This record gives sequence, C-alpha cells and structure tokens, in this order.
Amino acid sequence: MFSKICIIGCGLIGSSILRAVNEKKLASKISVYDKSSKVTDYLKNNFSVETSNNISDVVKDSDLVIIASPLSGYKEILLSIHSNLKENVILTDTGSAKKEVNKIINNLNLKNVNWIASHPIAGTEYSGPEAGFASLFNNRWCILSADKKANKDKINELEKFWSSLGSKVKLMSFEDHDYILSLTSHLPHAVAYSIVKTAINNEDKFKDDVIQYSAGGLRDFTRIAASDPLMWKDIFIDNSDNILKVLDNYSKNLEEIKNAIKNKDSKKLLEIFSSTKKVRKEIIEAGQDTDKPGFGRN
Amino acid sequence: MFSKICIIGCGLIGSSILRAVNEKKLASKISVYDKSSKVTDYLKNNFSVETSNNISDVVKDSDLVIIASPLSGYKEILLSIHSNLKENVILTDTGSAKKEVNKIINNLNLKNVNWIASHPIAGTEYSGPEAGFASLFNNRWCILSADKKANKDKINELEKFWSSLGSKVKLMSFEDHDYILSLTSHLPHAVAYSIVKTAINNEDKFKDDVIQYSAGGLRDFTRIAASDPLMWKDIFIDNSDNILKVLDNYSKNLEEIKNAIKNKDSKKLLEIFSSTKKVRKEIIEAGQDTDKPGFGRN
Repeated sequence: MFSKICIIGCGLIGSSILRAVNEKKLASKISVYDKSSKVTDYLKNNFSVETSNNISDVVKDSDLVIIASPLSGYKEILLSIHSNLKENVILTDTGSAKKEVNKIINNLNLKNVNWIASHPIAGTEYSGPEAGFASLFNNRWCILSADKKANKDKINELEKFWSSLGSKVKLMSFEDHDYILSLTSHLPHAVAYSIVKTAINNEDKFKDDVIQYSAGGLRDFTRIAASDPLMWKDIFIDNSDNILKVLDNYSKNLEEIKNAIKNKDSKKLLEIFSSTKKVRKEIIEAGQDTDKPGFGRN
Repeated sequence: MFSKICIIGCGLIGSSILRAVNEKKLASKISVYDKSSKVTDYLKNNFSVETSNNISDVVKDSDLVIIASPLSGYKEILLSIHSNLKENVILTDTGSAKKEVNKIINNLNLKNVNWIASHPIAGTEYSGPEAGFASLFNNRWCILSADKKANKDKINELEKFWSSLGSKVKLMSFEDHDYILSLTSHLPHAVAYSIVKTAINNEDKFKDDVIQYSAGGLRDFTRIAASDPLMWKDIFIDNSDNILKVLDNYSKNLEEIKNAIKNKDSKKLLEIFSSTKKVRKEIIEAGQDTDKPGFGRN
C-alpha cells in the first residue's frame, strides 16, 4: 500500500506495527529508528529493515512516518526530521495524549505535511521490541485525530492502514480524545499506581502476605501498574488538565464510599455497588472484554 | 472423609464446594440450605443432596458445617442452627472478614463446637449456583483462623479438607486475616467501585465512548466492580476499621501523584511508577497471576 513506511521508536507498539506491516505486506520498504542501539540491533537481526544512526535520514522518501516513542521525545524527533519529510507525507504517531503534541506540530508550521494523530487502544504490561506481536491491533480500536490541514484522501489512507492491521477506526477531535482517554485509561493508571503503592509497603511486616494473597483483587491492578514508567509519566504531564479534573471527581466518589462505610450505610453501599455491576455487562456487549470468569485465567 | 457435610448458602462459593466435594468423594452425604427456593431447586435438580425448608434440620448429624452466605446472614443462621449442631462438629465459613463473625460466635458461647473460620481466596465476578465450578479452589490459597477452643485434630481435618479441594492452606489469626485482606482485596474493591462510578456517568455525553474505548485500562477494573453487591456491602461494614485506615493511606498516595502531576514533576512520577512495576513480577513469581500479557485474554 505504501512504498516506504518509517517507524520512529520501536518498543512494544512500534515493533508490533513493524511485524504487522511485514506480515500483511503493507509496504515495499520499512525504515526504523530508535535511539537505543540495542533496539536497532535487535530489529536488524530479526527483520528486513533499513536503519541509520541519523534520524533525519530514515524519514527520507517515506510516505508514512509513524512516531511511536514516549511523548517527551516528540519535540526533538520532530525538530530533527521535519525538513527531510517527503512532500505530502502522512505524519502520525501512537501516543495516548494529543494536546501538547498538537501544539508542537502547529508551532513548526509544517508545509505539505498531513498530520493525523493515531492512538491504537492496544498494548500490554510488557515493553520493548521483544514484547511486540503482529496481532496486537487485531479487533482493537484505533482513534484518529486529523489536523485541519490534512488532506481527506490521506485520512482515508491512514484509516485503511489501521484497518489492514485489524483495527476498528474512529475519527475524533484532539480535545475529545484527550478527555475520553483521561477516563478510560489515564485515571485507571493513576489509581492502579496509588493502590499498589498503598498495598505494598516494604516497611510492613505483612508485605510478603500481601503478595501471597493478592488474588482477592489486588493482582488485577498490578498489571497496569507494571506499565512502562517513562511512557506513563509523559502521558500524565501532557494530559494533566483532564487528569486532574477526573481525579477530583474520583476523590469525591471515593469520599462517598468512605462516608457510607463510616456510617455503616448498607443502603448507600448497595446502591453504589449495584450501579457499577451493570457496566461490566455493557463492556462485554461492546466486545471490549472477555466474558470468561477472571479474564479466563482461572 | 466426612460422613456428612452441610453447606449453608449455595451461591458461587457454596455450590463450588458442593461440586468439588462430589467430584472428590469427600462425604457420604451432603445436605444444603439456601434461603432462596430457586437455588435449592437448582441444586436438587443437578446434584444428589439432602435439603429442607428448615435450616436447623439440615445441620443435624453433620461433621462439617460450612456457612457460605453473605456475612449479614450469619447471625440469623447461627441462632437457628446452634442447638442442632452435632457434638464436636467443625463449624466453618467462607467469609472475607472475620472480626464481627467471631464476636457473634463468642457471644453464643457454644459448647463442643470447633469454630475454625475459612477464607478461600478464590472467586469470580459471577454469582449464583450456576456460576460455580469444582476447580475454583484449585491451586488457590485458603486462610484458616481457629478459635482458641478448637481441637488441634479438627484443625488438621479442616486443613486436609481444603487441601483435598486443591487449595494451599495457611493458618492465621483473625486479626491478621482482616488486616491483610483489607489491603489485598477490600481496598481494591473500594477503588474499583469508585473508578467505575467516576468513569461511567450516565449524564456524560461521552458515556458510550468510555465503554467503547475501555480497553486502555478501565475494563480491568470493571471486573471486580461487578462482584456481588450484597456480599461486598457486608464486607465493607464488617471490616470497616481496617478498610477506613487503608483508604486514608491510599488517599495520601493518590494526593502525592496528584501533586506530582500538578507540578509536572517527572522525577517523582518516574519514581512512583518504577516502584510499582516491580510488584507485578513478585506476584507472578509467587504463582498468584499469569505472566501472559493482558492476563492472556489478547
């Protein structure tokens, strides 16, 4: 579909795109860049890819450039590549927050570049190129947010690209994306980090017991609290306005439960717990999780 | 092993014990009681069990009586059965909190009864007798807390019983149990209910989007927020002292993350997120969760 695709940043997501593009034969040539030579060595040894130590070289002649690095790396990457981008290139990314990135791109005032952000809602708790796999995007949503100046045909091309990787595609404004993701992804991560930090205290004589008996609920949270720390501190900083707002709402809801516990208010507790029970069913009906008990791991 | 086992309350846990006892042939006779006639009808149609509308009848001649009802039902159950308990019976339960139950039992001042609480750390987000399965306790921990007056041989017998169901058994004081479980299970449930209530707001025009894009983290939490509301409001009330204490610690840790986000403090965020990453590895090494990405559901 593309004559050349360039992937910048090849961890879990970037390397999964590489694998899927290879498997589906979506490009004649693939070039990759990663600031870690360990990563590029791994890629050269396992895949047929072009690479270079010079990031501005790898984007040359690419019809599709995908930035799949942590958000804090974008500015330097964009400053390094922008003058070497092919005319009418599709420039995209895979980041979980869009507002700050969009500012950086607007400030560069790029000409003949179609900036269309991508966010594949896919991932695991593992990171690095060894953790990637071609089917990661299969049957998962990918949200696209297009810059006003992006060409409609190019938006269609990028939609087709993600569809070819198995994804369902949704177009959304940058602002809506950042708000919705603050609820579906960023809040759960903030909460998971806090709960694991609370439950596992190295000073506590019961620390080993807490690990041992974690199957009562805690283990579910440790999975996302194991996500890549660098990637996540960037997301929290870039989407801080939304995240702080939803964290305030969250604290209010937690306070409501605390008060109901303090007052031994059975009625209130039952009312809260019954309302959240329905949500699981809706998520399963929307095809967003398995209906097998315990995620099917039992 | 036992000539008669009696199970009071036959939802997910009680019916799973019934299935496992049948499968492993651990009793010559099994009697069951559930206050719902729908449940007892289901059991009579599917298993070879004795039952009665009169709860005090079903415990007669039983060597092992297992209460597997929600905690708030215990008092009435114990008042109804205590005078019909067989001499030297083992009286146990499957509840997630022990302090209040222990008080009720002590107040009854039972003679020739071996009160040894059980807590199998096993379950799913589904409830009711249809949701049970014989392998539910396989390779899971079961915590026993024995009353001072309980006979050592009887404690051994109950340990063997749970081992026969596939469980690993740990003896622990009632107090330690309630503290450890407040961290490993009760805190995660309080947090899960709060987060789902925050993320899914029927007034929000993005409600359907939040369901749709829940795979970015939220869906993990909806599983335990779908647990049986009645069972959980009882746990929160019975273990309120411990839960309120750990919720306070949790709020402090959440505040720390909030402040780091507000101050765009990369260093602090990285430090927190790196510390929680290690915990996942420890839980997997302790055999308490799968190491497959995304719980193996991808």
